[in-house]
Parts: sequence; C-alpha cells; structure tokens
Amino acid sequence: MKQEFKQYFKELLGNDNACFDVLHQRVYSYDATKKHYFPDGVLFPRNENDIVQILRFCNENHIIVVPRGAGTGFSGGALAVNGGIVLSFEKHMNKILEIDLENLVAVVEPGVINFNLQEEAQKHGLFYPPDPASMHFCSLGGNVSENAGGMRAVKYGTTKDYVMALRAVLPNGEVIRAGKRTIKDVAGYNLVGTLIASEGTLAVLSEITLKLLPLPKFNKTAIALFDDIKQAIDSVCKALSKGLNPVCIEFLDLLTIEALKQKFKLSYLTANTALIIEMDDNEEENLLKNINYMRDFFLQMGAKDFKIANNEKEASDIWFARRNCSQAVTIYGSLKLNEDITVPRSKLAELLEGIRKISLKYNFKIPCFGHIGDGNVHVNVMLEKNDSYQIEQGYKAIEEIFKLAIELDGTLSGEHGIGISKAAFMQLAFSEAEMNLMRNIKKAFDPNNILNPFKMGI
Amino acid sequence: MKQEFKQYFKELLGNDNACFDVLHQRVYSYDATKKHYFPDGVLFPRNENDIVQILRFCNENHIIVVPRGAGTGFSGGALAVNGGIVLSFEKHMNKILEIDLENLVAVVEPGVINFNLQEEAQKHGLFYPPDPASMHFCSLGGNVSENAGGMRAVKYGTTKDYVMALRAVLPNGEVIRAGKRTIKDVAGYNLVGTLIASEGTLAVLSEITLKLLPLPKFNKTAIALFDDIKQAIDSVCKALSKGLNPVCIEFLDLLTIEALKQKFKLSYLTANTALIIEMDDNEEENLLKNINYMRDFFLQMGAKDFKIANNEKEASDIWFARRNCSQAVTIYGSLKLNEDITVPRSKLAELLEGIRKISLKYNFKIPCFGHIGDGNVHVNVMLEKNDSYQIEQGYKAIEEIFKLAIELDGTLSGEHGIGISKAAFMQLAFSEAEMNLMRNIKKAFDPNNILNPFKMGI
Ligand SMILES: Cc1cc2nc3c(=O)[nH]c(=O)nc-3n(C[C@H](O)[C@H](O)[C@H](O)COP(=O)(O)OP(=O)(O)OC[C@H]3O[C@@H](n4cnc5c(N)ncnc54)[C@H](O)[C@@H]3O)c2cc1C
Ligand SMILES: Cc1cc2nc3c(=O)[nH]c(=O)nc-3n(C[C@H](O)[C@H](O)[C@H](O)COP(=O)(O)OP(=O)(O)OC[C@H]3O[C@@H](n4cnc5c(N)ncnc54)[C@H](O)[C@@H]3O)c2cc1C
Repeated sequence: MKQEFKQYFKELLGNDNACFDVLHQRVYSYDATKKHYFPDGVLFPRNENDIVQILRFCNENHIIVVPRGAGTGFSGGALAVNGGIVLSFEKHMNKILEIDLENLVAVVEPGVINFNLQEEAQKHGLFYPPDPASMHFCSLGGNVSENAGGMRAVKYGTTKDYVMALRAVLPNGEVIRAGKRTIKDVAGYNLVGTLIASEGTLAVLSEITLKLLPLPKFNKTAIALFDDIKQAIDSVCKALSKGLNPVCIEFLDLLTIEALKQKFKLSYLTANTALIIEMDDNEEENLLKNINYMRDFFLQMGAKDFKIANNEKEASDIWFARRNCSQAVTIYGSLKLNEDITVPRSKLAELLEGIRKISLKYNFKIPCFGHIGDGNVHVNVMLEKNDSYQIEQGYKAIEEIFKLAIELDGTLSGEHGIGISKAAFMQLAFSEAEMNLMRNIKKAFDPNNILNPFKMGI
Repeated sequence: MKQEFKQYFKELLGNDNACFDVLHQRVYSYDATKKHYFPDGVLFPRNENDIVQILRFCNENHIIVVPRGAGTGFSGGALAVNGGIVLSFEKHMNKILEIDLENLVAVVEPGVINFNLQEEAQKHGLFYPPDPASMHFCSLGGNVSENAGGMRAVKYGTTKDYVMALRAVLPNGEVIRAGKRTIKDVAGYNLVGTLIASEGTLAVLSEITLKLLPLPKFNKTAIALFDDIKQAIDSVCKALSKGLNPVCIEFLDLLTIEALKQKFKLSYLTANTALIIEMDDNEEENLLKNINYMRDFFLQMGAKDFKIANNEKEASDIWFARRNCSQAVTIYGSLKLNEDITVPRSKLAELLEGIRKISLKYNFKIPCFGHIGDGNVHVNVMLEKNDSYQIEQGYKAIEEIFKLAIELDGTLSGEHGIGISKAAFMQLAFSEAEMNLMRNIKKAFDPNNILNPFKMGI
C-alpha cells in the first residue's frame, strides 16, 4: 500500500487505529476457515463518520475494503483475499446504544458480541433469540451479514427475523438508513432485506436495530431415542404440524452417537438416533403439559425412550452431548470437512440416506448432526490430515453432497454463507440469470467493486 | 399501441387473453385509489412461460408492463399511469398448487385470493396469518408486492414473515428462483427480501411459496375502555413487554367512537378510547388465564372497563365496531383522505396529539383508528367532496401529518405502499443517497425501465 494512503489513514484515525505492521496483518489474516490472507492494513473506525471518510477515500483511490466482525466466519467473508484494508469494529464500535423497553428494541453498534446483547436483554427481562453456537465470540454485524442462525431457529427464526432497521455506509461514503423501529414499514424498497446476508459486499453496517422479545419464564429439556432415523424425522414433522412448538430439536446420527460414547462415555445414548428437545413457555403448567404431550406422541410414533430432565443438572447433561458433537467426531480422522447444507425437513431422510451412500462409495466416515427442525445438517467428512489424495477425494465427496442437497430442493448453506469457501459451487445452485442479477445488484451498491470484491462467486 | 404488437400478443395468448377493447381498458383502469388510467391493453398469461414471452417482447420493444393482482391497492401500484399493458393473473394464474403438510408450506400462483388460501389452509388444520382487511378480494401476488399487513401483525407479523421462496420473471424475460422451502438459506443475496414490497417494479412474481402455521385451537375477544388514550397506549406497551402476546390490539379514538355510536347505536362504547383485543392459544385454560391476566392488568392501569366476550355472538358484536369504523366516520364528511402512517408504538400518543393540533389548525375532523400494537394508524381527514379549497387544504394537512410521522421516527406507509399516491412525499422520508440507491436497484433489475416505471418516486 502506498505510503501516502497509510499516512492519510493515520492522520484520520490516529496511529493506534490505523495499523500496517506485520503483527496486525497476521492477527487479522484468518477466520474460522483457517485460511490466511494478509491484509495491507487494519483500520479501527471510532464511529460512523470514520467509516464514511475511510470508504470515500478508498472508493476514490480504488482501495479494497474488507469489513470484519469477530472473524468467526466459516466461509472466509472477512478475509482480505485480494489485499486491501480490513475494517474492524471490535475495538471501538462495540457498544449497546439503547435497550428500548417500550418498543422492545435494541440499538447496537456492529461490533457488539451476540452474547453481550443476550445478557443485557436478560437484565431487562427480554430475549434476543438468534443463538449461533459461536455466540460468545461472534459480532452482531457479522450475524446480520451472514444471517446467522442457531438452535432456536425452529421456533424463533434466524437473524433476519430480528433486524428492524439498519444504518449503513455505501462504498462511496454515503450513509443510508433502512427500516424503522416499527413492525410495519413499506415505504421504498426493502433495503434491510437486501442487506441481510450480503456478506459485507454491499455496504458497511454502522448501526443495527434489533427486535427483542419478552424472556420466556420457563423451559424444559428432553432427549428422545429412536432406533430408526426415518421414524425420528417423521415424528418431528408430525409434531410440528400438530402445533407443538419446541425451541430446538437437534439430532445426532449413529456415527455421532458412537463417537460421543467412545470419547465421553455417555451411557444414556442407547440408540441409533437421538433427538434433543427444548421447549419454553410463560406458564410452567402449560410447559409440562406440552412436553408430556410431546413425550406421549414420540413414544407412540416409535421412540424407544423419552427422558425429560428433572433439573438443570440433568438438562445440562443432555446438552453436553450436543455441544460436544464436533469434538467427538474427531475420533474418525484428524481433518474434518464440515458443511451446513439444508433441505426441506421432509427430505432429511433422503438426504441422510444419500450421504450414507456417498460415504460408502468413498469409504469415509461422514457423521451428521444438527438442526432437524429446520432441515439444517452439519455434515462432517472425516479425513487424515497428511493424506493429500484422501483430501482431494474428500472435496469430491463434498461436491456430491452439495449436488444431492440441491437435487432435494435444498441449499448450499443454511448458516455459514458462501464467502470464498463455497464460491465455486454457486453455479450448482444458481442459473446464469440469477448470478447476473446478483452481479447487477452488487454494481448498484458498489460500482467500483471496492467492498469485499470477488466473494460469493459474484 | 401498434397493430403488430397487438397481433403478436393475440397469437401468443389467443384472442380471449389479449384484450384491447375499451371495456377491458376501462375495467382495468382503476384500483382502490379510484383514479383512472386506461391501459393500451390487458393480457392474461396462462402460465409462467407466457409471462416470459410477454416480458421478452415488451423489453425488446420498450412496451410498458404493469402487473396487476386484484386491484385493491390503495396507492395506485396497478395503474397504467403511462399507458402500456396490464398483466393480470386473475383469470388463469389463480391456483393453489400445493399444501405441503410435512414442511408446513403452501405454493401458490400469484393470482390466488388471500382468503382462498386461508380457507384451504384451515381445511388442513393450518393457518396463513396475514389478514389485510381486503383479504376477501386481494391477491397474494399483490400482498407480497405491497408487503401487506393486517390486524394479526402484532403477534404474527406481516406478509414478509411468511414468504419463503419466489419464482419471478425479470423484465428481460429471464426466470429467477429465490429462497427455498427451508427456514435457513443463506446462499447468495436475499432476493426474496429484495422483491418483497417492490410494488411490481422489479420483477413479475410467477409463483409464491408461503410458510403456514398450525391453526391455534382457541381464541377470545375482549374490549377495554379507557378515558385517557395515553393510558391506553401505555397499558399496551407494558402488556406486550410483560410477554402477553395478543393476536390483535386495535384502537378507536373518541371521534371514531362518537361516529360509531351515532351511526350504529353501539351502546357499549362508553368511553373516549376503546381497545379491541384478541388472544389465541392451543390450550383453552391457558388462554383464559392470559386474557384474565390482561384484564386485571388493564384495570389496574386505569381501564374503566374490560369485557371478555362469552360467546361468538358477543365477539362478533365487539368486532362489529372495528369493522365499521371506515363507514361510520363518513358522518364527518363526504370525502375521506385516509393514510396509513406508522410510528414506533411508544410515540403513538405524541402522534395522536400532533394530529389533534393539525385538526384544530385546519378545522377538519380527523378520526383515527387502527393497529395500536404495531403503531399503525389509519388517519382519516374528513372533507366535503365539492369544496375544492377544502380539498386543497386537506392535502396540506396530510403533508403535515406525514412530516409529523417522520419526525417521530415513523414511516409514510405501514401497509399500503407508495405507488403514485405517496411518490411526491418520498423526499420527506428518504435522502438523495437513499433515493439514488433505490434507482440503481431498479436499474439492476430493469435497465430498460419497462416494468411499472415511474412508481414509488423512483
Ligand atoms: C465454533 C463456531 C460455531 C459456529 N456456529 C454457528 C451457528 O450455529 N450458526 C451460524 O449461523 N454460524 C455459526 N458460525 C459461523 C459464524 O460465527 C457466523 O457466521 C457469524 O455470524 C460471523 O460473525 P463474525 O462477527 O465473526 O463475522 P466475521 O467472520 O468477521 O465476518 C463475516 C462476514 O460479515 C461481514 N461483516 C462483518 N461485520 C460487518 C459490518 N459491520 N458491515 C458489513 N459487513 C460485515 C464480513 O465482511 C464477512 O463477510 C460458527 C462459527 C464457529 C467458529
Ligand atoms: C377495503 C380495503 C381494505 C384494505 N386493507 C388493507 C390492510 O388491512 N392491510 C394492507 O396491507 N392493505 C390493505 N388494503 C390494500 C390492498 O388490499 C393491499 O395492498 C393488497 O396487497 C393489494 O393486493 P392486490 O392483489 O389488490 O394488488 P393490486 O392492487 O392489483 O397491485 C398492488 C401492487 O402489486 C403489484 N403486483 C400485483 N401482482 C403482482 C405480481 N404477480 N408480480 C409483481 N407485482 C405484482 C402491482 O403492480 C401493484 O404495484 C386494503 C384495500 C382495500 C380496498
């Protein structure tokens, strides 16, 4: 990067907030993909106006800008693949600006960590439902940009269901406001909708207004064991259509269960398929009624067992299994290619059967677990780190899995986004017309292609 | 329109589906705005492929195309203001294609009437929540294009919360698919989000996939009477933040109540403000508990009375008041300018106080009623039809009301959209940067500006 550019940023932000040293380059070179790309520098804007100045300058001088939340992304969205500046909100723009108790709304800066909002909301008896497994680390700016989901999505939806309004800075430095602190707003195009899941390629989010809910007063955890995964899926579909409204329904397949038993000696996992269920309610009586109803229904549908946790200790024991799936499956290999495909939940059995066939064909273990209620499966192709032939084959298996998901009317990604990791697979899922339209939208926001360019296959 | 163009359409669609006679021009010249613009012709596509052919031809020949649902729009979106072709889905593309009981999804053609889907869903124990007052007439294509809301929005949200996937034809004739039959899908830009509320200016919707819910088993209606509207609003804000989750909370102000009493002799409206409340639940016991809790809470907050309907007759008597507001207020004038501004619900008292001042300044009666739970107020400026000076003043009052709503961080339109009716007010609400961005998005979809051009002030 030209010296004069560095000088401009240092004068604008102060030396501490415009860093071009190797240490900063290294620290901001990677995310959860574990790929490394050194940026030319890292800038820490103190407020929206800093973002405006930075983007205006970068746009005029054709400097690439890569917005970055907490760098927990699984698809490389925050990586400076083509050099340029990383724009980080973690140092200054990390404040909860307002909890509005009358309208049940939170206003935050983009760098606020998801869990910090959850905690702050709880203090007021309120609740921010989206709970990615990374919630202790990931930022709300990253969550909106990826439309992060979590376990509670079956009942409560994903990030997009909570974004009421945004302030954002366009690549040319202009500030836009989108949406309102109201349930209804239909004036102009739905810019909030367009910005959600745009992976930092259209505009830099500078302020986020999120819907909060009253915190449900009671919850209950349970585990259901099935010998047949089809029965389990069928039971879930039927329970949901009967109006049972669980917060989460997670599943573990046979390979995952075996790994958990081997690694953690979890004696209660005595079947081929486990479902972990959580329900909530404002009335304890009603909650018990519903979870008992779910138990009776699942048993009638063929469950071998259905245990309701009697206390927090038992609940946390049940959740222990789900929380440690990722770690457990490492018994099958030193390298894990994990993807987050999603299919309509009625197609889950077909998907899992197809994955089993792919696993036989390549002779890889592919344990699967995830969010059965919303059809989102974490697929883990287990390989050996040092076997380059195997790794090559592993990627072929992944490609077959993507094709299968799309055949079943599913999607390449339920949560983690496209970034660079899945960019090459976009043509599997989208037609040329659809890709062109996305490119045109990109141009409408960013004609000079300075903001996180060449991501998402766009 | 050139004879050869007419010939092309007649050959493509058959004589019955390509109509250029005055009768068709007249019938398709107006919507609920009661403004008239004669189109050059009306086309009735039989399927998506017809839409493809029509748009491709119109794009090549620079013929304007105006998509039209049922023509119940309140902002002129379906009017051929600049001539061209009206594209109507009411004749052929009006079928419910699928009710998917496993994934709780409906797939419909755009011309399906909202209520027909509600009925079909009910047959399967399911529920399509968005319920615009026009639901017996309006189409789902129109609902998605306006992001229609209804009374149930407090608990269940608006149309946008139910659109899972769309098929649409771009102005150049290319078909795009957006979204999936899954709760989670983050591959590519959120095209579903961009198309919602785009008022037929970006693409023609050819197929809509909507989320359904299990039908709640029980519901209860109640009416609360307050002497002070501020108390009423405050009670609603507090009740919602306590986790009470009513399906609807509608309000009637003093002028509306007086009109209802005068016109319909409704003896039970014995206060300055009335709230009409509906709650639902799958458990009758729980429902009763909640509505009793709401009653106790409202009485404690200062309500004069809170009556819970004991049976359907009593419930329908209560709803009679709300359903007949529009008609009742006609006692104040032969002409009604009605708008659907929305503010954060905490600002409702300020909004209503401001409207009262505007009403005194201009000496017009301005009865207000609407959706208190989501801050969406139907404001009715009552005038005399034949008094052109008064009408001119009436529009000035409306402009002041828009300005007030925007000052209070509200929006020009909570439900009805911009179309031509509010196009002139877009600069009040949006900056030049925001307007330019919307124009760029329009160009990304429709570079030749053939699809419903010059609407929304864009
Ligand atoms: C252990 C682990 C578990 C995970 N579990 C889940 C899960 O359950 N569900 C789920 O959805 N994801 C999950 N993820 C993925 C990741 O946490 C989410 O995608 C998260 O939303 C990323 O947030 P971040 O702040 O780390 O963003 P980053 O990785 O820093 O960035 C992600 C994208 O957002 C953009 N961005 C960030 N901030 C802004 C801004 N202010 N303006 C514009 N663009 C911006 C970046 O440019 C980038 O494209 C998990 C990750 C890990 C490591
Ligand atoms: C008595 C009455 C009560 C009402 N109450 C409510 C209410 O409670 N809530 C509410 O939100 N609205 C209400 N409305 C307004 C209106 O009913 C809604 O805006 C409705 O969504 C319009 O649907 P429509 O089928 O009549 O659309 P139209 O009026 O025909 O068209 C509306 C817009 O949608 C576009 N469009 C239609 N179909 C397509 C398609 N397939 N592809 C692309 N664009 C398309 C048109 O171009 C136009 O811009 C009410 C109207 C009346 C007359």
